Formats: sequence, structure tokens, C-alpha cells
Amino acid sequence: MRKIDPEKHAARRRLILDAAIACFSRKGFHGTSTAEICAEAGMSPGNLFHYFPTKHTIIAAIVEEERQETAEIFRKLGEEEDLFAALLGFMDSVLELAGDPAYSSLALEIAAEAMRDERIGTLAATNDAELQSALVALLRNAASRNQIDRTLDAEGAARWIAAIIDGIFSRVAVDPGFKPKEEGVLLHRLLSRFLRTQD
Amino acid sequence: MRKIDPEKHAARRRLILDAAIACFSRKGFHGTSTAEICAEAGMSPGNLFHYFPTKHTIIAAIVEEERQETAEIFRKLGEEEDLFAALLGFMDSVLELAGDPAYSSLALEIAAEAMRDERIGTLAATNDAELQSALVALLRNAASRNQIDRTLDAEGAARWIAAIIDGIFSRVAVDPGFKPKEEGVLLHRLLSRFLRTQD
Repeated sequence: MRKIDPEKHAARRRLILDAAIACFSRKGFHGTSTAEICAEAGMSPGNLFHYFPTKHTIIAAIVEEERQETAEIFRKLGEEEDLFAALLGFMDSVLELAGDPAYSSLALEIAAEAMRDERIGTLAATNDAELQSALVALLRNAASRNQIDRTLDAEGAARWIAAIIDGIFSRVAVDPGFKPKEEGVLLHRLLSRFLRTQD
Repeated sequence: MRKIDPEKHAARRRLILDAAIACFSRKGFHGTSTAEICAEAGMSPGNLFHYFPTKHTIIAAIVEEERQETAEIFRKLGEEEDLFAALLGFMDSVLELAGDPAYSSLALEIAAEAMRDERIGTLAATNDAELQSALVALLRNAASRNQIDRTLDAEGAARWIAAIIDGIFSRVAVDPGFKPKEEGVLLHRLLSRFLRTQD
């Protein structure tokens, strides 16, 4: 039996995911063939199949990776002194990602696939639930430190922050006048007034 | 030549549009055949074809109708004394519509079709631009009456209100915990703090 070198395995897996992300951003999930992903990754179909038996397992891996990255981001945010500033920093990074055409088109592809395919839908729903839990925890901690309004319903506020994140990606798709990287000032006003005590 | 009775023509057109809306909400735009729309409307294919030669002309008519309704809503809102209260009322009606499963699934169908089909995309973009113009006009008038913050950038605020509207429909699609009809209190807080002067 051939022994698997875990580092080499992880590196090849990474190579395929990056190639797939590039293809999906350019041509959409349904517009991309596994042959194109192989060509982009410089890999034979047999070799790709060894890592990901279907295109669906690739998109599932991308969604799972997104979940891990979000968890890691919130773990780091939780260590900050000023949790409200940390939240603003997170939302700035959302604007930054939404302003990256490759990322935003991939996000829309995943959202569309989550509607069409139940397995991807379940994974996307898990990511969404985890993001909201992480937001709730951050808001609760911020409230306990008086960095935001202590009387605010944290679950409700987290749902609206999630709605705003969705809205940012939707605007990028439909409104050429919405330039995420230039919207930071108004987003800060919106969040600080929504979340903080008025004084 | 047969004379067209304009009232009868409008009534039959209405009948077809309502039948199509019911079908599209249930089975999606691509999942609905013209035969099903005929059955729902109780009309022969030849008769339907006389009003709408293709399924696309039906969805285009629905989007156009949405445009006219939005224009009419904002014309009425503009006559209110308290324009900020009028805006809150409009946003409450958005929550109400988003909480109606038939309406929200139709809205998602149209948004998806606007991405796939250039003609529908152009119509949807026109609706979006008109909604934003109407919001800008409302915000400017409200500012001139000191009902909202006079120093606020009206175009920017309108873009964010549009993002929030998108976010509401997106949440309905992905998050069973987001119940639009119960979200009014937090939406009022968000909008009033975002738009009004703090005192």
C-alpha cells in the first residue's frame, strides 16, 4: 500500500481548490467542467478524482474552508480589547471582500448553489448559523464591557448584521453605483448608531 | 377587423399575470410551463399567446408592474407630513411582503432571472435605480424639513437602505430564524438611529 505524505496531500488539495475557485469565479459553478479545473491546476483527471470525486465535493470543500476561516477570524476578534472596533474591522473586511470581483462572484455562485442543491444548502446554512453565533457572542461580550448598548437584543442585532452582510453582496451584484470599498464611512455610522448607546 | 374592448383586454391580462405569479411562486420560473399558466388561468394556449407571446414577456410584465406600484407608493409617501414616519411605514410594508412566502419566492425568482437574462436584468436594474431615486428624493425632502439629519449624504443613505431591503429578502431565503414580521422593532431602531440626528 502506498503511503500518503500528509503535507504533499494538503498541498495538492490546496492547488485544486485554488484552481477551482479561479474557474468558478470566472465561469460559474455550472459553466466550469472538471477538465477545466484539471487544466487550471495542471493535473490529470485521474489525479483530481483521487482528491475530489465530483465537482460538488469541491464546492463543499470551499464552503467548509470558508467556515473554518470565519471561525478563526472570530477567535482572533474575541481577543481584542475593544470588541466594537473589532466588529467594525470585520465589517470593513467584508466590504473589502465584496469589492473583490473574484470573491463576490464566487460568493454569489455558492449562494445560488445553496438554493439549488440540498447538500450545499445544508453546509451554507451551517456557516450562516455559526457566523450568527459568533456575532452573538461578540455582541454579548462587547455589551458586558459597555462597548455597545447593554440593553440591545444580541440575537436580533446579529440577525440584522447578517442581513447587512447579505445586502452588501447583493448590491455588488445588482448596483454598479455601490462601491463597497467606498462605503465604509456610512457603514460605520450605521453600525455605531445601531449598536451603541446614544449620548 | 375585430375591435378590442380595452377593459376586457386589461382584465384578461390581469388574469394571466395573477395565474403566472401563482405558478412562478410555487414552482419557479423555469419549473413552470406555459401550459400550466394556461391551466391556472383557465385559458387556451392560443388565447394566452395573444397576450404574451413568451414566458419572458410575462415575467417582464410582472417586473414592469412592480415598477409602477413602487412609483405609486412613493408618490403617496411624498404627500405625507412626516416623511421619516412614511419611510418607516414603507419599510414595514417591505417586511410584510418578505414575510409572505409567495411574494418572497417570486422576488427571489425575479432576482435570479435578472442574473441569467439580460432583458430581465435591464428591467430589474431600472426598477432598482428608480427605487433609489425615489428614496433619495424622500430623504432630501425629509432633511429639508429637519425630519432626518440634514448633514447626511442622501445618495449614500439610499444605497444602504436598498442594501437592507436586499438583505431582508436574502435572510428570508437562507435563515429560518429571521421572521420579517417580528423584526420591525429592530429595523425601526436601525433606521431611526442611522438617519436621524442624535440627541
